[in-house]
Amino acid sequence: MESKGSSVDSSCDLALLSEINSPDDLKRLSPEQLPTLCAQIRTFLIQNVSQNPGHFASSMGAVELTVAMHYVFDTPYDRIVWDVGHQAYVHKILTGRRDLFHTNRKFGGISGFPNPMESEYDSFSAGHASNSISAALGMAVATELNRDNPRRNVVAVIGDASISGGLAFEGLNNAANTNSNLLIVLNDNDMSIDRNVGSLHSYLAHITTSKSYNNMRFRIFRALKKMHVVTDRQRGPIMRFNNSMKALLSHEQNIFEGLNIRYFGPIDGHDVLRLVRVFSDIKDMKGPRLLHLRTVKGKGYEPAEKDPSRWHAPGRFDPSTGKVVSSSSVIRIPKYQEVFGQTLLDLARMDRRVVGVTAAMSSGTSMNILQGEMPGRVFDVGISEGHAVTFAGGLATDGMRPYVAIYSTFLQRAYDNIINDTAIQSLPVTYCIDRAGIVGEDGVTHHGAYDLAYLRPIPGMIIASPRNAMMLRNLMYTSLVTGHGPMAIRYPRGQADADVSGAEMKRLTLGKSECLVAGSGPQVISIGPIASLVSEAVTVARSRGVDAAHYDAVFLKPLDNEMMETIAGIGNPVITVEDGTVEGGLGTAVSEWLVQHGYMLPVIKIGIPDRFIYHGTVGELYRLCGLDVGSIAGRIVGCDVGADR
Amino acid sequence: MESKGSSVDSSCDLALLSEINSPDDLKRLSPEQLPTLCAQIRTFLIQNVSQNPGHFASSMGAVELTVAMHYVFDTPYDRIVWDVGHQAYVHKILTGRRDLFHTNRKFGGISGFPNPMESEYDSFSAGHASNSISAALGMAVATELNRDNPRRNVVAVIGDASISGGLAFEGLNNAANTNSNLLIVLNDNDMSIDRNVGSLHSYLAHITTSKSYNNMRFRIFRALKKMHVVTDRQRGPIMRFNNSMKALLSHEQNIFEGLNIRYFGPIDGHDVLRLVRVFSDIKDMKGPRLLHLRTVKGKGYEPAEKDPSRWHAPGRFDPSTGKVVSSSSVIRIPKYQEVFGQTLLDLARMDRRVVGVTAAMSSGTSMNILQGEMPGRVFDVGISEGHAVTFAGGLATDGMRPYVAIYSTFLQRAYDNIINDTAIQSLPVTYCIDRAGIVGEDGVTHHGAYDLAYLRPIPGMIIASPRNAMMLRNLMYTSLVTGHGPMAIRYPRGQADADVSGAEMKRLTLGKSECLVAGSGPQVISIGPIASLVSEAVTVARSRGVDAAHYDAVFLKPLDNEMMETIAGIGNPVITVEDGTVEGGLGTAVSEWLVQHGYMLPVIKIGIPDRFIYHGTVGELYRLCGLDVGSIAGRIVGCDVGADR
Repeated sequence: MESKGSSVDSSCDLALLSEINSPDDLKRLSPEQLPTLCAQIRTFLIQNVSQNPGHFASSMGAVELTVAMHYVFDTPYDRIVWDVGHQAYVHKILTGRRDLFHTNRKFGGISGFPNPMESEYDSFSAGHASNSISAALGMAVATELNRDNPRRNVVAVIGDASISGGLAFEGLNNAANTNSNLLIVLNDNDMSIDRNVGSLHSYLAHITTSKSYNNMRFRIFRALKKMHVVTDRQRGPIMRFNNSMKALLSHEQNIFEGLNIRYFGPIDGHDVLRLVRVFSDIKDMKGPRLLHLRTVKGKGYEPAEKDPSRWHAPGRFDPSTGKVVSSSSVIRIPKYQEVFGQTLLDLARMDRRVVGVTAAMSSGTSMNILQGEMPGRVFDVGISEGHAVTFAGGLATDGMRPYVAIYSTFLQRAYDNIINDTAIQSLPVTYCIDRAGIVGEDGVTHHGAYDLAYLRPIPGMIIASPRNAMMLRNLMYTSLVTGHGPMAIRYPRGQADADVSGAEMKRLTLGKSECLVAGSGPQVISIGPIASLVSEAVTVARSRGVDAAHYDAVFLKPLDNEMMETIAGIGNPVITVEDGTVEGGLGTAVSEWLVQHGYMLPVIKIGIPDRFIYHGTVGELYRLCGLDVGSIAGRIVGCDVGADR
Repeated sequence: MESKGSSVDSSCDLALLSEINSPDDLKRLSPEQLPTLCAQIRTFLIQNVSQNPGHFASSMGAVELTVAMHYVFDTPYDRIVWDVGHQAYVHKILTGRRDLFHTNRKFGGISGFPNPMESEYDSFSAGHASNSISAALGMAVATELNRDNPRRNVVAVIGDASISGGLAFEGLNNAANTNSNLLIVLNDNDMSIDRNVGSLHSYLAHITTSKSYNNMRFRIFRALKKMHVVTDRQRGPIMRFNNSMKALLSHEQNIFEGLNIRYFGPIDGHDVLRLVRVFSDIKDMKGPRLLHLRTVKGKGYEPAEKDPSRWHAPGRFDPSTGKVVSSSSVIRIPKYQEVFGQTLLDLARMDRRVVGVTAAMSSGTSMNILQGEMPGRVFDVGISEGHAVTFAGGLATDGMRPYVAIYSTFLQRAYDNIINDTAIQSLPVTYCIDRAGIVGEDGVTHHGAYDLAYLRPIPGMIIASPRNAMMLRNLMYTSLVTGHGPMAIRYPRGQADADVSGAEMKRLTLGKSECLVAGSGPQVISIGPIASLVSEAVTVARSRGVDAAHYDAVFLKPLDNEMMETIAGIGNPVITVEDGTVEGGLGTAVSEWLVQHGYMLPVIKIGIPDRFIYHGTVGELYRLCGLDVGSIAGRIVGCDVGADR
């Protein structure tokens, strides 16, 4: 299977692509060869991603713009900053990683996102959306400050979803205040910004990007100045007036020009020759500019063009038929996401105060289940996690019971909002923290490693993690019926243990643990679904004569005093296991509790170590972290023996 | 002094104001009485704030808009959400807190910011900028979902600085997608959004806000529809076209209309009668609207109008002369802020890679010292902490050495950026975390309680806090010369111990503590300037025969192993003292170290407890937290005795 992924179908001619080992090779091609190269890249992408799953549709839509940029710009000296790496596969293929591409997202292989540790062509880490403009602006300013070096071009490539994030707006707002040589390429693939496509646009794009048009603007200004009609000071308003005229003609307000960023476009992002001309034209202009490209997600692969959302990251598929290979043929057990989604629907049916809030992850979190039945009760706010949380605070202020489903790694963006806009006010917002712990192939920027640690210092927060599907259901119900201030419920990506749809929900006691196996030897405490691996490890240890106990803490905060008293009273080593960083989570809470209560016991903390963990399957990364059954069992058995030392 | 603050100068007639105990009383006045009331409110503000220092100029500029809103809207049923509380003093005075106003910001008194725990009129907590639109949108949506209740008006009042934050943009962007009954009042007091004031604007504002103009728009639409020229679907584009025409006429792009939010204004924010008319006119319109008011910061008090920045929070002053009463006549010792500012200038002179980044706190952080000498090396990005950090990441990527100075509480907004845009990439960004620990009168939303706890889980972060001015200088220098990845240096608001300007800087060893007093009794470890109180406490304890030791950890991460080995080897109780939460900071790190290294010692953690702390002087709040000399000494002495138990 692996060799299949790396080989190139002999029926396709990939002659041009096979000779591109760097952008320098690309520059040797004539412009006329570029469309052929683009076709070969698409074939290569289809062959590879169909065998080695990854993000597909975004990169298919970015073929021409990537080729054109590397053709025109002098990378890596010129900087291309990708916003979210989904769209950067072609960039990787053109910058020396074609033959490694079959290792994409695999343990030890190349990363699915741009990563400066991997290649000098990856100028900045791109995992979380909306950071490209700010980072690129920093580079553009740095190049001005570094007067020894010749001026470098800096390009941020951002999608239409990412640009709606507050961070991107802050970047635009600041870019507009500088004269930095920053080009922002807006890769607009779903027309969310502007649905008015028309010939007028194309016309405007043409005159706007041609050098003559810009020269004309400056000539008019110079002429007026000579006649003492205008001063330098008035140049800004005149330019803005010009932009207003364009906006008027195009029947739309252009927010970029409102921010004083020169706007070019929209332009067909699949016309590679035109892109080369446009990039060449606007490359050497001064000041911040935005080039608006229209692209088609999945371009060049019919099934993906027809249903781009489904083909965002389709999994393995048959290239010729477009049929996705089902990943499992076993009995259908729902994912945690589906348990969440179904439970939210049940709660919403039961209590009209229940609403859902998600930040562009309606299907990823399964909030689309509620959305399907009660669309008015779900708020997808787009990529804006901070707003999602504060908005939920506003909803809770006036009597709603919002459930905010955000991936753990993205919730980092709403940290201040959680504290100020919910916790300080004790507002009953339930955080359903998805993709908690190791997430696998998405890698270092996406692991949900820190949520337990960063939420624990917040006064009044309830922090829980369900061991299984039923407990997720019960925790969500408990949050509703207790009406406590903010409560966090974290759960991982992936399959739960059982189908619990329709099961009666039970109110749990806040801060109450569960004893799964009693024993007088090492005392193992886990939190979350990692309990299943811990159970296996405990069974292994017990089979080897170790009388290990196993508790599910269920709640990190408040930590169950009764459980801790029982465990501490036994006087044997304590082992904590969590799918999160060991700096500040369960292991920390347990250690602190013991010290504070005067118990002098060894604690072995098992979790994500205090370093960055890259990509691979969840299983591979668990092994790397010592979170696999064998490693955990080893620690349990080892510390029991060790107790005699 | 206290009675003076609460009393009303007998020479001024505050008869109208003295009868306003709630907005209901306000509504009994005739419109013609409102200007007189506004004048009396100004007198009251001047009298009070001159004696009991607080934020001044912002509230002086918000008198009329606050009076008009409470006159027109039915608060507290209708919601007013203030963005940042500086401007909300008048709101407090009109909503039953006039006679408590002399306790503003005092321990046990009313809060300087809106606080829902304090009054039902304070609909949302407002400490950190830019959250009002999101919160208000939540309330507006809640009121629609709650169909039992009559529709409520929701008003967000946001300043022109706050609206530049990414969170506000996310709020606007989402508000535009709903039909919620949300009114955004833009209190524009420094014209940062638009400097083109002209009669055309005033004209447009007039026709735009008059009912007839809006009726005209709808009549035109209805007429065109009747003629089958347009459909309901086309109404949006037509309205936008209308807006474009206005933008064209006003020689500017209007970004709000670009976002499809109906824009009204700008209007003179000091014409209370007109404001009453305008609020009445637009109150019952549907959908999100923005009303742009121009106000003058410090309005009505000449010294403040002339120098509004200085009068933002002037301290105590003589109302008749406008002379600020100097807070101390003792020998001038610089603040930590000045030590930072001077050192940054020294580093910038020494190394051209050094640049400063601040988020609207150039004078607050003293980055204006560098700005004064090298304006091109300082980047004030406005209220956009996330951008500040990612931008710094971009600068560091291309060879700069950015020093990012942000208040601890506001850095919470950049948590994800710290992780993804600096730590994962090991970029040499130095975080100079100002206002760390208890900040005093600004209270619950502003204490820098969490930084140590939230930064510690980040892999590779260096986290330090200087004990004194010289150490701050040395840490800043050390960060430059080691060129390590991200490093955080936290220090409090307020006076340092010495003037160290010009002193030679020394490279410190990362992760190296200092032993201040050796001893074989209780082992006290502190971090940061709280060391001075701890030193006093240790002296007290030693005078009472307790052989206490005192270490300054200097670094929270990495924690000094050698120090810990020495301390642990002594075998006596360990006491940690930090000006930060006890959940996750120094006390946690020390407890964990001991447990991990098999030492079974009691640890007493002294710090900010795990609950929200409100306002008061730093001294009062330290006492509340047990962070005063007496309490610390008591714990040291107590645990020495306790060791025999």
